[in-house]
Amino acid sequence: MDAQSKKAALRMIPYGLYVLTGESKDGRVAASTVNWVTQASFEPPLVAVGVKADSHAHAVIKESRAFALNVLGKGQQDLAFAFFKALDRDGSSIGGEAFSSGESGAPVFANAAAVLECSLVATSERRADSVFRGEVVGAGVNREIAGRPDTETLVLGDLGDSVFYGG
Amino acid sequence: MDAQSKKAALRMIPYGLYVLTGESKDGRVAASTVNWVTQASFEPPLVAVGVKADSHAHAVIKESRAFALNVLGKGQQDLAFAFFKALDRDGSSIGGEAFSSGESGAPVFANAAAVLECSLVATSERRADSVFRGEVVGAGVNREIAGRPDTETLVLGDLGDSVFYGG
Repeated sequence: MDAQSKKAALRMIPYGLYVLTGESKDGRVAASTVNWVTQASFEPPLVAVGVKADSHAHAVIKESRAFALNVLGKGQQDLAFAFFKALDRDGSSIGGEAFSSGESGAPVFANAAAVLECSLVATSERRADSVFRGEVVGAGVNREIAGRPDTETLVLGDLGDSVFYGG
Repeated sequence: MDAQSKKAALRMIPYGLYVLTGESKDGRVAASTVNWVTQASFEPPLVAVGVKADSHAHAVIKESRAFALNVLGKGQQDLAFAFFKALDRDGSSIGGEAFSSGESGAPVFANAAAVLECSLVATSERRADSVFRGEVVGAGVNREIAGRPDTETLVLGDLGDSVFYGG
């Protein structure tokens, strides 16, 4: 397999940006920017999320069995960049972003464009990366959506011409 | 959970379009337009694909344990629409699209913008939809890519303002 072709073909997959959050029973909060997200079923509504196995979010979600995907909207590059690194909770905010506990128990950002709250139903672990599948148990949209919802979403290319996570 | 919010939030996930293909040992070829695709690991390179459990592609891939994601490029709306329905093989073409057998054994379209050939490593079945995870064992790109690879990809919105598969 040609390494350059593999990289280019994998980078043709378009991605939105999300802050994946979880909260452990003892109150630790994890928030991590992710892009490996797809719906995986209609009934029940499932999403699949690829997560780095050594990330704080991975550990917290595995324990709490719940997560939220805070969907970033156009213009929210600052949130995407902020949560590329692990940050600590400060009361009811993390990285300066106010959150509340959603139906699932996972942190829901007040400022995200939308949220999908999920109950963890399956974990596939494989070396460096796991795939969490979650059943959507709560959802909210914080923006007026005039056209297609998918045009409101912050995408990987909005972070810069050379920013990729994939390949 | 509010059904409208759930639908809108899920539809904020952006998607590319792919023709998922497989070939059974007895020469049956399946080709199906899909959009629930994400990378799932770097090492080994894995992709995850959501597939309708009652589709021809699902049956063929489960048996052959190999699939190809033929990545559709800008302008290839006709291919996306053609493989929304099941079509029969005609020699070395299906639905008028010429293919060859790739490294994985799965059909590779001559005209697709790119291809990811995969060996099936895991199947998660859940009522109406399954998630196949495949290790990328072959890849090719058939277009000159000047800018970001993900801007070359046909996306769901290119099929029409009201075309969705998700929600």
